[in-house]
Amino acid sequence: MFETAEIGHRLDKSTYEAKLPALRSALLEAQYQLKREARFPVIILINGIEGAGKGETVKLLNEWMDPRLILVETFDIKTEEERERPPAWRYWRRLPAKGRTGVFFGNWYSQMLQNRVHGVIKNAELDHAVDQALKFEQMLCDEGALILKFWFHLSREKMFARLKSLKNDPLHSWRLSPLDWQQSKTYGRFVKHGERVLRATSRDHAPWHVIEGADERYRSLTFGQLLLDGLQHALDRTSIQPVRQAVPPIPSLDGRNVLDSLDLTQSVPKDDYKRLLTHEQARLSRLMRDKRMKKHALVALFEGNDAAGKGSAIRRVSGALDPRQYRIVPVAAPTEEERAQPYLWRFWRHIPARGKFTVFDRSWYGRVLVERVEGFCSTAEWLRAYSEINDFEEQLREAGVVVVKFWMAIDKDTQLERFKAREATRFKQFKITEEDWRNREKWDDYATAVNDMVDRTSTAIAPWTLIEANDKRFARLKVLRTINDALERALKKG
Amino acid sequence: MFETAEIGHRLDKSTYEAKLPALRSALLEAQYQLKREARFPVIILINGIEGAGKGETVKLLNEWMDPRLILVETFDIKTEEERERPPAWRYWRRLPAKGRTGVFFGNWYSQMLQNRVHGVIKNAELDHAVDQALKFEQMLCDEGALILKFWFHLSREKMFARLKSLKNDPLHSWRLSPLDWQQSKTYGRFVKHGERVLRATSRDHAPWHVIEGADERYRSLTFGQLLLDGLQHALDRTSIQPVRQAVPPIPSLDGRNVLDSLDLTQSVPKDDYKRLLTHEQARLSRLMRDKRMKKHALVALFEGNDAAGKGSAIRRVSGALDPRQYRIVPVAAPTEEERAQPYLWRFWRHIPARGKFTVFDRSWYGRVLVERVEGFCSTAEWLRAYSEINDFEEQLREAGVVVVKFWMAIDKDTQLERFKAREATRFKQFKITEEDWRNREKWDDYATAVNDMVDRTSTAIAPWTLIEANDKRFARLKVLRTINDALERALKKG
Repeated sequence: MFETAEIGHRLDKSTYEAKLPALRSALLEAQYQLKREARFPVIILINGIEGAGKGETVKLLNEWMDPRLILVETFDIKTEEERERPPAWRYWRRLPAKGRTGVFFGNWYSQMLQNRVHGVIKNAELDHAVDQALKFEQMLCDEGALILKFWFHLSREKMFARLKSLKNDPLHSWRLSPLDWQQSKTYGRFVKHGERVLRATSRDHAPWHVIEGADERYRSLTFGQLLLDGLQHALDRTSIQPVRQAVPPIPSLDGRNVLDSLDLTQSVPKDDYKRLLTHEQARLSRLMRDKRMKKHALVALFEGNDAAGKGSAIRRVSGALDPRQYRIVPVAAPTEEERAQPYLWRFWRHIPARGKFTVFDRSWYGRVLVERVEGFCSTAEWLRAYSEINDFEEQLREAGVVVVKFWMAIDKDTQLERFKAREATRFKQFKITEEDWRNREKWDDYATAVNDMVDRTSTAIAPWTLIEANDKRFARLKVLRTINDALERALKKG
Repeated sequence: MFETAEIGHRLDKSTYEAKLPALRSALLEAQYQLKREARFPVIILINGIEGAGKGETVKLLNEWMDPRLILVETFDIKTEEERERPPAWRYWRRLPAKGRTGVFFGNWYSQMLQNRVHGVIKNAELDHAVDQALKFEQMLCDEGALILKFWFHLSREKMFARLKSLKNDPLHSWRLSPLDWQQSKTYGRFVKHGERVLRATSRDHAPWHVIEGADERYRSLTFGQLLLDGLQHALDRTSIQPVRQAVPPIPSLDGRNVLDSLDLTQSVPKDDYKRLLTHEQARLSRLMRDKRMKKHALVALFEGNDAAGKGSAIRRVSGALDPRQYRIVPVAAPTEEERAQPYLWRFWRHIPARGKFTVFDRSWYGRVLVERVEGFCSTAEWLRAYSEINDFEEQLREAGVVVVKFWMAIDKDTQLERFKAREATRFKQFKITEEDWRNREKWDDYATAVNDMVDRTSTAIAPWTLIEANDKRFARLKVLRTINDALERALKKG
């Protein structure tokens, strides 16, 4: 797969200089159109052999185009804040907003290849990393992102020659880290695994471009042309929505759904409640202080009918803890900065560091609930959200994050009672709005959405817990107990 | 000053229970009004003696009020990303948005007191830290923030008794870090310096409240009542703008200003330019790679007349560097998240880590330039911006950040020529808008604003450099040379 990038491509000076001006102004024009329309971000991945001109090419890109709209990101050693969170967190936090271009050095491919070449991981783990990368890129593309992946290549001989000449050049020798030279010894392995990764990750929506790096003019012009083609093609799209086949949920032929099976009459007497609550709160407090929590984090999310008691359940959970241990994130309409990013970005921002606990009051499931029912997103969007969410939660779980998900269910009569009670209490009036009454009219649509959601996202790694919430005491205890059980299991496994 | 908090305040159970319900619902009501109006943020500082119930009180606060709207922040050990930046950066990044409440443990007062008590700093440095804190709080209050500062106190005897009882209580002993016990030895010093700091930092707009912590009921109810009074008072304000005397700039009686004194005819011949440019670029590249840069960072900001050549000057600067070393921040209208924060917040976000370089294409001076001229902010706002900006730049400088500021000046005829040239060139048309023509009509207003700006913010630590930019070559060289000279001076000083 690298053969065509080892044949010694060259470009003479006059051809280069003849073609360059048109290329530059076209690139600049495309860049400003991108900015003006701000429909999608551009992500450029820079990978390949040391000495093949990766850094020089990006430097050139910043000269040709407007560097104010380009964010160059290097991911070498993780910072402390990054080490405390799932591996993908560092990429999410650096994603360019719509209209901008991000150039990623030392990206996910660099990480997996370095790890494989130096024997930190084996092929099975490499395949898993490839799989994660594919899902991540698929999600980005589904959100409209343009991903351009470049592999700068050099034959073994050319690489040695280049490293040697750079070493002797006083103006460039500083560029050569010890790692580079070490890589010259591992060239064979690097190319072998590189090929494996490139083969597995070259997809329609984000193909690899292999560029021979030996000749500067050839390399630069080829890169510029590929970038321009990619940009122009993406700008010409009338829609950023790719056509994808997502399997729609199976309609429930008998009209029954998972909510119907709940026994909402369950309750806990007041006397038992106090004792049991104290017991579960003490348990949670103990578990969160357990030394083994250093390897874990906790995420609990609350969805449910309006007036089902999410807020009061959350207070019973947080009441057990030191306020420095947890953070509650109320999920409302996305902000401007959040709207310029992929859907899950605003939740990734709040992923807790190890030892910490984040409560989401409503969550990423908004997409398959309110956004689906109200038509705030397209069918394609909510359909693909199921698998995006499963991938997301899998990543959390792999990083030691315990994920607990609650749907708090009440029946329609109970909701009506609570709505009326809220309207009657002065300082609870803010809790009841026109919107609540409107949502109530769509009760059945929500029930269908909840059913599909549980169907498709209640996984072994992050199962849904349905909370029978007609009785608030019963609900709060079940919430606490579920969190405690999940934490206990995770801590036992270590 | 702590005497009244050592007299053994107590509250009996029945009084406490009689008063609590009304307090709680009033607090909740105030909190929701705060959220609904989202006019200002609330910042609660928690300080005082170990064992005086700081943690317990905040825990209670989260039970009484809606914890979803409260962000509890602890600032103990700095993270790596925080260590790389000026000390205040960690506070700026955690500021609550308008409508929210932030509770800060281990805040600036804790830091300065710990350092003083353990001899890390002397009185002079303590005074400097106090001064910084005052300026920071002044700025926050000027932006409308409500700051409530609480000192939880215990007499020496009560503290020992409490620490002892906590130690013997299996449910609480985990709370006692070794530091706590250590502090029991340093009680005297802690109280002495604490008093000094409290005296110096109790101001009208942000007074200290000293609460005796021995009796839980007294402590809790006093805290709750003070918080409620503060909240209600702030919510009742019709304007969040405090009345302050800011000295307006002195009108220029002879109509001359600093821009008039520039010799705009200065130029550099093409032949010399290439050589000199390469020289300065190589110099910048070398300086940025200097090992001593590890202790420094670089900020260069560009302001100037429209079409003065900011963009092309920036490209000559960035062209000298590896794109991984710098970041260019184009400053446009603030986003929604930025508007919910104090003015300087959106610039603090982009302060470079050590060894890095941030170029601001337009900057925090927007407030005293475009916002002043166009009336986008009140007179009080732009007047106080001068000293806020000076404080900001002083903090950068103290943290080793080299700050270089450019005003790029052209004359009115040159601007007209360039506007017309832009309109004539297809891919430069985006660069010229209606707004540019409108700004041009306010040429004299801008000149006055620039004059005042230079007058009031050209300081020894961060001087303005006026760039004669009629000749682009001359301008670019002067920009590069100025940056290089500033860097060189900073590196020499170490």
